[in-house]
Amino acid sequence: MQQEIPYKIYLEEDELPYSWMNLRAYMDKKPAPLLDPATMQPITQEALSKVFCEELAKQELDDTTKLIEIPKEIRDFYKMYRPAPLVRAYCLEKKLGTPAHIYYKFEGNNTSGSHKLNSAIAQAYYAKQQGLKGVTTETGAGQWGTALSMACSYFGLDCQVFMVKCSYEQKPFRREVMRTYGAHVTPSPSTTTAVGRKILEEFPGTNGSLGCAISEAVEASSRDEGYRYVLGSVLNQVLLHQSIIGLEAKTALDKYGVKADIVIGCAGGGSNLGGLITPFMAEQLEGKAKYQFIAVEPATCPTLTRGTYAYDYCDTGKICPLSKMYTLGSGFIPAASHAGGLRYHGMTSVLSELYDQGLMEARAVKQTEVFEAAEYFARIEGILPAPESAHAIKVAMDEAIKCKETGEEKVIVFGLTGTGYFDMMSYEKFHDGKMVNYTPTDEEIDTAIAKLPKF
Amino acid sequence: MQQEIPYKIYLEEDELPYSWMNLRAYMDKKPAPLLDPATMQPITQEALSKVFCEELAKQELDDTTKLIEIPKEIRDFYKMYRPAPLVRAYCLEKKLGTPAHIYYKFEGNNTSGSHKLNSAIAQAYYAKQQGLKGVTTETGAGQWGTALSMACSYFGLDCQVFMVKCSYEQKPFRREVMRTYGAHVTPSPSTTTAVGRKILEEFPGTNGSLGCAISEAVEASSRDEGYRYVLGSVLNQVLLHQSIIGLEAKTALDKYGVKADIVIGCAGGGSNLGGLITPFMAEQLEGKAKYQFIAVEPATCPTLTRGTYAYDYCDTGKICPLSKMYTLGSGFIPAASHAGGLRYHGMTSVLSELYDQGLMEARAVKQTEVFEAAEYFARIEGILPAPESAHAIKVAMDEAIKCKETGEEKVIVFGLTGTGYFDMMSYEKFHDGKMVNYTPTDEEIDTAIAKLPKF
Repeated sequence: MQQEIPYKIYLEEDELPYSWMNLRAYMDKKPAPLLDPATMQPITQEALSKVFCEELAKQELDDTTKLIEIPKEIRDFYKMYRPAPLVRAYCLEKKLGTPAHIYYKFEGNNTSGSHKLNSAIAQAYYAKQQGLKGVTTETGAGQWGTALSMACSYFGLDCQVFMVKCSYEQKPFRREVMRTYGAHVTPSPSTTTAVGRKILEEFPGTNGSLGCAISEAVEASSRDEGYRYVLGSVLNQVLLHQSIIGLEAKTALDKYGVKADIVIGCAGGGSNLGGLITPFMAEQLEGKAKYQFIAVEPATCPTLTRGTYAYDYCDTGKICPLSKMYTLGSGFIPAASHAGGLRYHGMTSVLSELYDQGLMEARAVKQTEVFEAAEYFARIEGILPAPESAHAIKVAMDEAIKCKETGEEKVIVFGLTGTGYFDMMSYEKFHDGKMVNYTPTDEEIDTAIAKLPKF
Repeated sequence: MQQEIPYKIYLEEDELPYSWMNLRAYMDKKPAPLLDPATMQPITQEALSKVFCEELAKQELDDTTKLIEIPKEIRDFYKMYRPAPLVRAYCLEKKLGTPAHIYYKFEGNNTSGSHKLNSAIAQAYYAKQQGLKGVTTETGAGQWGTALSMACSYFGLDCQVFMVKCSYEQKPFRREVMRTYGAHVTPSPSTTTAVGRKILEEFPGTNGSLGCAISEAVEASSRDEGYRYVLGSVLNQVLLHQSIIGLEAKTALDKYGVKADIVIGCAGGGSNLGGLITPFMAEQLEGKAKYQFIAVEPATCPTLTRGTYAYDYCDTGKICPLSKMYTLGSGFIPAASHAGGLRYHGMTSVLSELYDQGLMEARAVKQTEVFEAAEYFARIEGILPAPESAHAIKVAMDEAIKCKETGEEKVIVFGLTGTGYFDMMSYEKFHDGKMVNYTPTDEEIDTAIAKLPKF
């Protein structure tokens, strides 16, 4: 007989994973290698180590080691806010009247407010180990910047954050949280970097984008010997660290003998979704199980659903390595939507490859329907979600409603990546009926894609 | 041999208490009864039921029943965000270099951001049971208003919130969270009530106070048959519901064979501290154990340390029942500090009586030292505390540092009542060095106390 499932499944401290899982090692057809922008050849670990810490450069290129041990110092930090709960959404199921069983992995119970801390602490740890003075980074919605500030403060590293301008303005208090953790925050594009000045010249009055902010942070890191650049999404290393989300979720389900049918996550650069699906996808790639995976992206920035699969720059300034990925073109600047964390032109190469192989689906949703789902969920499940996370809620609810129609008792698992405490200006717009939906035209996308690098 | 203690102790769902604990029932000398402002005689349940829901009026007056069963509907709601973790502050202990063992009961992992939800859901439940249309209330820092909005939304009740003006202005996004849950929020004092207009006339330009807001909410509740007033602190019923904090904390400690030496909480109206100490104090009153209890209050509003023990009105407008309590006088309007939730002129009668009997200590602390402790804690333990909660952190750290000096391995337990996500304007002032400490003069206090009702 199946054990009764509590509202929240908390693993014990010793059930917290001892290793991260490297999804690439399970793939027969691996993601294409990163290219060095100087040579347009696969980048070497040596070249990559000029941008990233050595250990992280190594992790970035390693596509064969299945399990990578989590250093004790990082695991100790994880214990402060992990294991994160896997929540059975009993109230939501009841309200929707669905036979589906809905679970969500909640990553918002830490001060950064999201899953980003999982990789931030790892990257700060390796930077500290290498004897660096500090790190530079970009942040969209501000969750990554906050997470990195916390991690740097813990290890005593300087932290310089370039924050996408539209988020900087929408979330005035985010800066203050980062400051509480001792970080320095600059709105991007800024005049403090050459690439920032160039972007401002080309697009005066731009709201910025993750792509711009990345370029600025990379440039800033190269100004001082003791600094390296760190990134909160897109990279293989980040997906590796975020695998802890999926590992915990799967351990919790296994503990209660529950097999997921559908796994859903929002997708900007792909870090939370990549982390969440890792152990499930690995099992499927080993032929041991079958799942339906759904990536949910904003209609304003429809990377998977309307982008193209090609080599592209990861940043607007074209100074980072190139990645083969689904992309709207590194020159594509999405409209200022209320899900700043999903405003990225590309998608991590692992998810891009899985999507290309037909192993994952993708859906694009409009922001007003996302906020409707967010408010509905907040009222029923008592958690105020981040707009980014609410993309997954929207599709999870859609799937649960389908189950109501078909009578199927599917098990739906989705990633609730973070909380919306700093998104109240967006909620206000929604409440006041002032939120508009923007979908880029085919011409806009075609124009940006036409500028992809040629080989 | 003692079991190794994890960073966070999470109870199982079936360890969540089935009953609240009524501390008054354990006291030989009970708190003095509430007085009816119309007769100045002990208030009857009938008279009290005109203000509060019937079941809550009953709980308010019951000082003999030790355990009161938690209705299933409330316990089900509790399961969405409880049991709350009892955290072992390993990182803080290490950083302070103290032999003390520090634990904190963290109540911030829910969208209201504090422990207030524990009583809000109970009060909303009884209002619904009685067939009411809605409730009115006041809120200081906004945590209670948010909690009540969530609870009302869950049970489909209308929710009208009078928010202390200085908090309304300091925390613009709090209103929006309440609105997400469908509540109506009015800054207090307002011109929508007679008592509000009177207060504005007497003190033009006032920042408001909890006392004012209570008066307005009580008046608003009397305008419509289907409404009752609910209150987030001070009352016996609230302490009863908040006993869940202490019950869980004590169960968690008992589970690992840990005996607390010092129990610390911040004290505004006294709800979290009262709830936290309940099972510990009950044990002590039964002669089974001995603890040191410390109430921490802001120096701007030093109710216990500088107030007097006498009958006083619970509200500025003098329309609520009178309570015998430590008070600065219901006419005392504290300076606009950054711990809005602690700006109350009185202290719940249970804690007042215990303090008067010498069973509890009290300390008043300055806000700059509170924010120093808050930032220190945030960086070490990874949780950004509410300014109110940081009062307890400050004294817990002081006690831990004393242990360092004496070498004592004391077990310190404190209540971390909530998170500071909506307090970033206050943190900003602190970072910018613009935060000032204000301590009322003896004359100010004497003047307010001189106006206490005479018998």
